Amino acid sequence: MGENCLKTVYLFNEGYGQSRRLLGGKGAGLCEMTSLKLPVPPGFVITTDVCKSYYANNNTLPKSLMKEVKRKIAVLDKETGKRWKSKTNPLLVSVRSGAAISMPGMMDTVLNLGLNDDTVVGLEKQSGNPRFAWDSYRRFIQLFGKVVFGVDDSHFDDILNAEKTRCNVTLDSELDENSLQNIVKKYKDVCKKQTGAEFPSDPDEQLELAIKAVFASWMGERALVYREKNNITPDIADGTAVNVVTMVFGNMGNDSATGVIFTRNPGNGANQIFGDYLVNAQGEDVVAGTRTPKPVSNMKKELPEAYDTLVQTCNTLEQHFSEPQDIEFTLEQGRFYLLQTRSAKMNAVSMVRTSVEMVDEGLIDKNRAVSRLSADQLEQMLHPSIDTKAAKNHKILAKGIAASPGAASGIVVFDVKKATALGEEGKPVILVREETKPEDVPAFFASMGILTSRGGKTSHAAVVARGMGKPCIVGCVDLHIDYDSDTCTTQNATLHSGDSITIDGSTGVIYTGEVPTISPKITKNFKRLLSWAQDSKRLGIRANADTPEAARLARKYGAQGIGLCRTERMFNAKDRIGLFVDMIMADDITQRNKILQKLQQLQRSDFVKILRAMEGYPVTIRLLDPPLHEFLPDPETLSNKIKTMSKSDAQDTTPVLRRARDLAEVNPMMGHRGVRVGITYPEIYKMQIRAVFEATARLANEKVDARPQIMIPQVGSVEELNYIKEIYGTIKSEMEKRYNRKLSVNFGTMIEVVRAAITANALATTAEFFSFGTNDLTQATYSFSREDAEGKFLPEYMDKEILSHNPFQSLDVDGVGELMNIAISKGRSVNSSMEIGICGEHGGDPNSVKFCHASGISYVSASPHRIPIAMVAAAQAAISEV
Amino acid sequence: MGENCLKTVYLFNEGYGQSRRLLGGKGAGLCEMTSLKLPVPPGFVITTDVCKSYYANNNTLPKSLMKEVKRKIAVLDKETGKRWKSKTNPLLVSVRSGAAISMPGMMDTVLNLGLNDDTVVGLEKQSGNPRFAWDSYRRFIQLFGKVVFGVDDSHFDDILNAEKTRCNVTLDSELDENSLQNIVKKYKDVCKKQTGAEFPSDPDEQLELAIKAVFASWMGERALVYREKNNITPDIADGTAVNVVTMVFGNMGNDSATGVIFTRNPGNGANQIFGDYLVNAQGEDVVAGTRTPKPVSNMKKELPEAYDTLVQTCNTLEQHFSEPQDIEFTLEQGRFYLLQTRSAKMNAVSMVRTSVEMVDEGLIDKNRAVSRLSADQLEQMLHPSIDTKAAKNHKILAKGIAASPGAASGIVVFDVKKATALGEEGKPVILVREETKPEDVPAFFASMGILTSRGGKTSHAAVVARGMGKPCIVGCVDLHIDYDSDTCTTQNATLHSGDSITIDGSTGVIYTGEVPTISPKITKNFKRLLSWAQDSKRLGIRANADTPEAARLARKYGAQGIGLCRTERMFNAKDRIGLFVDMIMADDITQRNKILQKLQQLQRSDFVKILRAMEGYPVTIRLLDPPLHEFLPDPETLSNKIKTMSKSDAQDTTPVLRRARDLAEVNPMMGHRGVRVGITYPEIYKMQIRAVFEATARLANEKVDARPQIMIPQVGSVEELNYIKEIYGTIKSEMEKRYNRKLSVNFGTMIEVVRAAITANALATTAEFFSFGTNDLTQATYSFSREDAEGKFLPEYMDKEILSHNPFQSLDVDGVGELMNIAISKGRSVNSSMEIGICGEHGGDPNSVKFCHASGISYVSASPHRIPIAMVAAAQAAISEV
Repeated sequence: MGENCLKTVYLFNEGYGQSRRLLGGKGAGLCEMTSLKLPVPPGFVITTDVCKSYYANNNTLPKSLMKEVKRKIAVLDKETGKRWKSKTNPLLVSVRSGAAISMPGMMDTVLNLGLNDDTVVGLEKQSGNPRFAWDSYRRFIQLFGKVVFGVDDSHFDDILNAEKTRCNVTLDSELDENSLQNIVKKYKDVCKKQTGAEFPSDPDEQLELAIKAVFASWMGERALVYREKNNITPDIADGTAVNVVTMVFGNMGNDSATGVIFTRNPGNGANQIFGDYLVNAQGEDVVAGTRTPKPVSNMKKELPEAYDTLVQTCNTLEQHFSEPQDIEFTLEQGRFYLLQTRSAKMNAVSMVRTSVEMVDEGLIDKNRAVSRLSADQLEQMLHPSIDTKAAKNHKILAKGIAASPGAASGIVVFDVKKATALGEEGKPVILVREETKPEDVPAFFASMGILTSRGGKTSHAAVVARGMGKPCIVGCVDLHIDYDSDTCTTQNATLHSGDSITIDGSTGVIYTGEVPTISPKITKNFKRLLSWAQDSKRLGIRANADTPEAARLARKYGAQGIGLCRTERMFNAKDRIGLFVDMIMADDITQRNKILQKLQQLQRSDFVKILRAMEGYPVTIRLLDPPLHEFLPDPETLSNKIKTMSKSDAQDTTPVLRRARDLAEVNPMMGHRGVRVGITYPEIYKMQIRAVFEATARLANEKVDARPQIMIPQVGSVEELNYIKEIYGTIKSEMEKRYNRKLSVNFGTMIEVVRAAITANALATTAEFFSFGTNDLTQATYSFSREDAEGKFLPEYMDKEILSHNPFQSLDVDGVGELMNIAISKGRSVNSSMEIGICGEHGGDPNSVKFCHASGISYVSASPHRIPIAMVAAAQAAISEV
Repeated sequence: MGENCLKTVYLFNEGYGQSRRLLGGKGAGLCEMTSLKLPVPPGFVITTDVCKSYYANNNTLPKSLMKEVKRKIAVLDKETGKRWKSKTNPLLVSVRSGAAISMPGMMDTVLNLGLNDDTVVGLEKQSGNPRFAWDSYRRFIQLFGKVVFGVDDSHFDDILNAEKTRCNVTLDSELDENSLQNIVKKYKDVCKKQTGAEFPSDPDEQLELAIKAVFASWMGERALVYREKNNITPDIADGTAVNVVTMVFGNMGNDSATGVIFTRNPGNGANQIFGDYLVNAQGEDVVAGTRTPKPVSNMKKELPEAYDTLVQTCNTLEQHFSEPQDIEFTLEQGRFYLLQTRSAKMNAVSMVRTSVEMVDEGLIDKNRAVSRLSADQLEQMLHPSIDTKAAKNHKILAKGIAASPGAASGIVVFDVKKATALGEEGKPVILVREETKPEDVPAFFASMGILTSRGGKTSHAAVVARGMGKPCIVGCVDLHIDYDSDTCTTQNATLHSGDSITIDGSTGVIYTGEVPTISPKITKNFKRLLSWAQDSKRLGIRANADTPEAARLARKYGAQGIGLCRTERMFNAKDRIGLFVDMIMADDITQRNKILQKLQQLQRSDFVKILRAMEGYPVTIRLLDPPLHEFLPDPETLSNKIKTMSKSDAQDTTPVLRRARDLAEVNPMMGHRGVRVGITYPEIYKMQIRAVFEATARLANEKVDARPQIMIPQVGSVEELNYIKEIYGTIKSEMEKRYNRKLSVNFGTMIEVVRAAITANALATTAEFFSFGTNDLTQATYSFSREDAEGKFLPEYMDKEILSHNPFQSLDVDGVGELMNIAISKGRSVNSSMEIGICGEHGGDPNSVKFCHASGISYVSASPHRIPIAMVAAAQAAISEV
């Protein structure tokens, strides 16, 4: 299509109904307000298509554009009663950028355009205020020179300061019109020096140059960086529009003013206008901060009529947009103008409050209330956060990978036992380790937060901390820990055991000292919102929970079951880890079985508690997953320890070392774990399956509606599953006979091995349910070990745009998602009503939840603290489908 | 279908054309020989379906069976002129088992059936030899008692021995008919004692019992074990047939004989009958070894007429079966009978020779010659093998995983440098290590064989040794190496550095001392056969080769290109590894580039040599694949070494330790390697790409037809591939400008990451070819690390039948194969003529080659030593399709 076919310029009263994509956010807002008969100064929008054409044609404007612009200027003449280039009543305009996505301050604007040595005289006459006219002229040249010609501000400042010195005054406003005329001349000279030509006096030429300059600023350094940082990609905004707006002046006396206000309080969501204004000032004065603006509430007294208009306008806008607005207004000699409106940016708390109140006010419906929240934003509400103001007084020690959100302060402790002991004494402890192991878990319970120098987002520390909802930073490579001297060093400092630090698990930043934190609250509003989300969603929401406490918390947040209960976590309790190690070290099967019997009693009592807490809802119990060596000490460390032991101690410990070495693996992620352990040491799975059935029987006796499901991890073939199913079947009959009742315990499999996804039709002949383990599945699909990838090449992959996002945080739809869809369709081809869940960490990620909804998954399971997020994301997915 | 509808019994002259599945191998052979008018004693076959019915109906025979059998017995009466149950001229029969797959000696047989106190008199009359008659009766009772009643042989032996003592003789044959009558009575008593009933005298009853006993022996302990060991599954043989055959006697005087012969020599394939016979003997005497049989050549003089018949019969059989036969014959008073024929089992050498000679003789065509070889068997011909006789005099030290076939003797050396030095002096060295690293490769070149106590079939040692064609045993867990004392110990012995051992990489067995070995030869016959295979196959065959020598060898074996040239192997040469380490240690990019320039020159010269050696054929050069830390020393070892160093040495070495620790990974298989290194250190890939183009330009100048292809490893997304393609494109233009000519270097990707397979359509937009890396793809699909799996749970998985075969040896068709088919179809949907190869080790496995043929892959690439195997397998796949 040639440029002639396209409408390139829209008057504000022509543009309503066109997309923000075409007119930019500001332009679309101005057109929409115009259509609402709100007092918008006349103006027009040059579309973003023109911007694209500008870049496509080697930075030139379409040939016919300026003709069209002049035609629109003529319309403005008519509407305002002023005249373009007039020496008596001149029309002046501002030329403003405005892309589809707001990029405040990142692109250029020119004000007071249309002034020259002739029209300034007209402005004098029009306003009856020569000082005002020449000040406007001076401002115009400065801004135009800077934006269009790239003149450095310092040149203008020097001239201004020199004049002030000469006149012996300190404020700009103290300069009189003679001084300003003087300055105008000198400003023009500066521009001439820069361009080698006279400063353009023809308003048409000025306008063309300004339009080009605004387009050029789309690709300016600031704009590029901003778009990259805020992930504004060409598919959501690919150019700026240009808004040409009749100038109105808030600086024409005490019946003039300018202000920026929100229709509701963006800090707490309260339903009252919120913002600042300045009397006798232009917008830039508010921004520049040279004068202190007054709170808008003050306007009620000072400018009561205007205040009423403002409040009324705010109501109109909210009624129309169904969103709190962020607006700019100007009062010119008592006449009220709106210059901009856009949806107000709000924090999580105010989003929640305004959502609920707007429903109550009948402004929006519940679906809209749920949809307008960013699920990510909710995260803020669910964890203690750093008091950012207070944080400014604290040194940043280092930065690591934000692994589990929330902030915590405490004393640095490197030793695991010491951390446990101090924590149990009630000291706030931050456990600082190179990495952590299952045997360190008691110290997790005792600590306020965890910091490791190694590992990624699925490292042991990260996963365990997230599960417990404790703040955690991992992979802080700048942190060098020396266990021997009980210190750690960064480029900035050395910390000793006992020193205070604060970690922000939401950002990965580590501060020295105790930074005050802000506690989260589940407000009444938030609860109402969650209940609406619960009503709208189709996906089930379950929790990853390994303890009765976690189960209760999950239930409180609205979880409808436990999608993942990791049985190995139970072995890490202080009274059990020793028993478990003994089991691994058992010389023969008899000894092992004896120990397993003890463990069986413990597991049974765990299961009873969890099943009771989740009464009426399914609880998916995953049998032992990690490789056995994870429960033994690290061979190198142990070997060193043995060297310092007495002979008899060394003798006692050597078998453990030998076993740890025997069990050690080159690639533990892909080793002897999950069902592979279950098959080679069937006595372990037998014990766990028996414990589940015994717990079920016991609760059945008590008439508790327990709904356990047994889930097998790391399955890659139906043969593996069949092997365990046979064991399960034998135990089931044995138990049903013993307890003389039917015991219903579903039997299913994780899908976390690629081969399981590929052969899901075979698995579906044995499994009653599937649950995607998307952490492992993502690792296997990418052949990335998350631990290695996140610490090493993943950041560079994001920098180089090879990955658009971290696939461990948000599901990789093209690869992992495709595999999941293969598995779902193969599984359901055998059992069309099969329950298929997802229990990887992606279950708590909004985008991944959206994918799960679309692929027909039955439920997502997330850590308790992320359940509200999953809930809202699931509701949004369901709502957006309608 | 009811049993009445099925023909349950076939006379030998009725059965020709029925399947071996139905009649068993023996029965089908007898029917076929009968149809050829060869002298087979009349008889009939009870089908394997009856056997299945027997088991399906709780070990009972179909009701009508014995009626049908009696009808057939009546036919035998007619054909032989003898009479069942006759007191004057009785018909006697043997009752023999015979399944679809030969299971020699594993099931039961009854001879001389039909004898009782009456018919024995008839036999006396018929033969005119009372002693023969009573000896036959005695033998019948013994065999029947054992087979049908389960009487222990020792009871019969005791009676026989007692009688010999009583008569004061030593040989059975010295007992006269009175003694034998005596024995018959006592034998019957033994049976009566066992069963509580009189020995059955009715031949009909005898026959029914014998038939049942033969069916029962299908599920006997011996048969079950044999079938399991030989992988005879129900889909290839699911029951035994029963052959009822008129008895003929080789023990009726000196004009009688019995023998077992091959129509060609099974040891070397020579075209002459080969085997043994005994005059005046029954078959069991040949087997029992109580008399020494004579070579069949002797028959020419001793029984010239029968010999001529035999030779003629052999010709007839070969003409008919187109296979050398293994036959049993009996001469009864000058009359020649054939009792069995089957295809002769032969070793690789004789299979090759007979194949070629039978083509020359016009017996078979070339396709048949290629098809009758087992590709696995070929392996024997391609490596030195243990002289198994001589091996019996040597102690077996231990057993490990057979990782690279062939046998080698040498002195044990534990130290890598010492091994290199001694090897270069010409000493035969066996390198014995816990595991090996890239820096150990010079010692590989200098050694005769490699033995490691750790690792699996894709451990570094295994893969490198296979590539070099050197014998290698890995994962010998019983071997404890103590580097400090320069010794290793097993349960049996302690070896010192310098002691002699012999390793058999084909079986994993390690012997003490030097066991003589037998060298392989590529015979003229073998070469002809390979050339026929080459003509028949559709798949391309390329080689995995990293050196000009390997390239030349591959070409000699018939490779049509190099499918995988691993560039990192070139960095392991003695003069390069230091340089490569310096490159890794470089402080900044400038220093690194300086070193890379040197490496570039070396690589260029490598590429020139390899491309020249493969002139006219494609050479696929894979850019650096392993993680950088593989080139650095192990941190723990180095750290210990540093402790013993002088202060200044320690200072120099510490940075290497630090770097090694920085680069260390938890799961190196899934870490920072392949294209991930290429993207984070682009200077390395740039160097390699430049070296390829420079080599290409140089050869173009010399008018050498070089056809390089650049292949990127570990690719998981098209974004990665695009990043490198851009580098490639820049270098290509730069080089074409510099050398002023077009340089054609194809650009492609490995498919070894699951995500690459799943997104192959995207990759196909950038890659010009695909090559499946099935080693890594199998690991990723199963989430098994081969190194960990093979040493730990894989053996148990095979035992428990969770895996039917090792997926690293033979491709997993359901999982990995399915993924490959997804990738092929996605890739070809974008580029229908895309070249897709496979360069994992599966390229040398016959079953995997068959899969590749079927999925439409373009070529397989295997190590040079496996190319003949791949060639034959590819030909067989193509032939079997016709």
